[in-house]
Amino acid sequence: MPQAPSDRALIPFVSVENMMRLVHHVGIEPALVELTDAIEADFRRWESFDKTPRVASYSREGVIELMPTSDGEIYGFKYVNGHPRNMAEGLQTVTAFGLLADVATGYPLLLTEMTLLTALRTAATSAMAARHLAPRGARVMAMIGNGAQAEFQALAMKAVVGIETVRLWDIDPKATAKTARNLAGSGLDVVCCPSSQAAVEGAEIITICTADKQYATILTDNMIGDGVHINAIGGDCPGKTELARDILLRSDIFVEYPPQTRIEGEIQQLDADHPVTELWRVVRGEAAGRRDARRITLFDSVGFAVEDFSALRWVRDRLPGTGFHQPIDIIADPDDPRDLFGMLRRAGERGTRP
Amino acid sequence: MPQAPSDRALIPFVSVENMMRLVHHVGIEPALVELTDAIEADFRRWESFDKTPRVASYSREGVIELMPTSDGEIYGFKYVNGHPRNMAEGLQTVTAFGLLADVATGYPLLLTEMTLLTALRTAATSAMAARHLAPRGARVMAMIGNGAQAEFQALAMKAVVGIETVRLWDIDPKATAKTARNLAGSGLDVVCCPSSQAAVEGAEIITICTADKQYATILTDNMIGDGVHINAIGGDCPGKTELARDILLRSDIFVEYPPQTRIEGEIQQLDADHPVTELWRVVRGEAAGRRDARRITLFDSVGFAVEDFSALRWVRDRLPGTGFHQPIDIIADPDDPRDLFGMLRRAGERGTRP
Repeated sequence: MPQAPSDRALIPFVSVENMMRLVHHVGIEPALVELTDAIEADFRRWESFDKTPRVASYSREGVIELMPTSDGEIYGFKYVNGHPRNMAEGLQTVTAFGLLADVATGYPLLLTEMTLLTALRTAATSAMAARHLAPRGARVMAMIGNGAQAEFQALAMKAVVGIETVRLWDIDPKATAKTARNLAGSGLDVVCCPSSQAAVEGAEIITICTADKQYATILTDNMIGDGVHINAIGGDCPGKTELARDILLRSDIFVEYPPQTRIEGEIQQLDADHPVTELWRVVRGEAAGRRDARRITLFDSVGFAVEDFSALRWVRDRLPGTGFHQPIDIIADPDDPRDLFGMLRRAGERGTRP
Repeated sequence: MPQAPSDRALIPFVSVENMMRLVHHVGIEPALVELTDAIEADFRRWESFDKTPRVASYSREGVIELMPTSDGEIYGFKYVNGHPRNMAEGLQTVTAFGLLADVATGYPLLLTEMTLLTALRTAATSAMAARHLAPRGARVMAMIGNGAQAEFQALAMKAVVGIETVRLWDIDPKATAKTARNLAGSGLDVVCCPSSQAAVEGAEIITICTADKQYATILTDNMIGDGVHINAIGGDCPGKTELARDILLRSDIFVEYPPQTRIEGEIQQLDADHPVTELWRVVRGEAAGRRDARRITLFDSVGFAVEDFSALRWVRDRLPGTGFHQPIDIIADPDDPRDLFGMLRRAGERGTRP
């Protein structure tokens, strides 16, 4: 009489510790490149996915979201929160975990931490967008906002786009010092700047990722010269934006999924019918990306379920043989599927000692 | 330098094995009674909850659903699938897991299997409805459909309502034999019946729980006498019903959450404005339940997120001191919340052995 759960009842769980091991096993920059390619591959088959805006539960302190999608064979979702005030209490602003399941049976296949994975996929998505939109041969990026996402952005832009210099600025000099310290030895030329104005000087890519839950104007119109690519990460929920409206009006705007971005992104400042281009169309060559050297391109990124799906797939593909997971017994799997009660009753006969 | 994850990064995970231990530790019938009371307590404060229809991803083979809710302090959601054809392949029709999180921080608090817990809470919800709607002094229940839910329904109706006899019928006699075997020694008088017609004879409560994904008429109008309470469980997604429409037209109908039940329940057979009563109003004494001894009452149950929330709360309250859980490292918790990358980098310096 089998007492241990059957193999079918066990799914691999990737803890934070194991995710870190997996990323180092692959290498941080190679992992970012692979994730960029995985996301791009899924953007190329955009119409394969069930797409819905995420399901958000808002509170005074923040938001908890469920982001499901499916390609008809595999279903994935992510749980993610956004709580800007957490940082002051020593907590992460964003934590996340995710799951893959088999569409044909509904059985879970993989459960994994996604706080780290979200940081990686967000940077990889930015790099994918920049690969299609940034000026050719861009070598200098300004990084405005030096929080948890900053180093991932810098390394993804280095590994995927070829950025050589990153110019840092944050309202808090300690955050800039932390980012500079973490990027030491990365091969990037790191410049700590005294103002956002100074940081954007000479930058061909401007990445902005700040975390205030309010309409903020971190970048003003006069700071943005012709021909740059703006990678806007931080404006990602209603009432939270980072760019002056005038910048948006001068830019060609690219988005992941318009119904979600119009609610959550920088373009919530614009009319509901303001023209935007879906990034997947650019990736597929169906829409123009950068039209000429003087245009400002803006990727108004809010994060979309397909990117998490790509990241989850990447983990699933990379996991076998590494040992960087543990089995967890999350599926009740009685010998006779109608006999769930019998499974419970027999467990009682075995006793209830932990 | 701490290598192990911080306490904050760990949340309790309740595996299937530990859920079985917890239920036996409390006792199956006491657990059903406590769950019934927990659900009733949450139905009494119905307006405290964020309520949305569940987010369903339909496929040819079945459905995968996310069911979130929040009372403003605690957020909960359940992942659940429904795949009627799974049984033929030796798999569960329904598997589930769930999570509680802190609304103020977005941090997860508890992750648990919910296949067993859903079976228990579904039966507890039926018992709660019957406590308010069934004829006084009901002692005999017909159980139509003897699948995974049957024993849980029988024991909840025994423990909460005082049922003494259960009359079983299933299209597959093996399922009936399995249920009878499992209920032996439960104190219930168990009668295996040769037809659904025979099973409902003399029954004051008729519980129906079959799993076909099609419009089926398991119960016909002439089988249903005056004064009974019908507890309809199996009709729970578009295209899946179990009762003849004429039965619905003779019944006072009670539902969990009308926007969801009109899509998924038996009442999908009726006009969109057919009168129904929300069960929480009956529980609170704001609406009539059973009006007289001759009325047919029908609980058109599809399962609602608040019931899962109640069940998750019950697990969380019952867990401390039992040891029936294991810590899992699902939240990345760097010492400095902005230094997620530093946490990753330092992990690399420690090496990547599993």
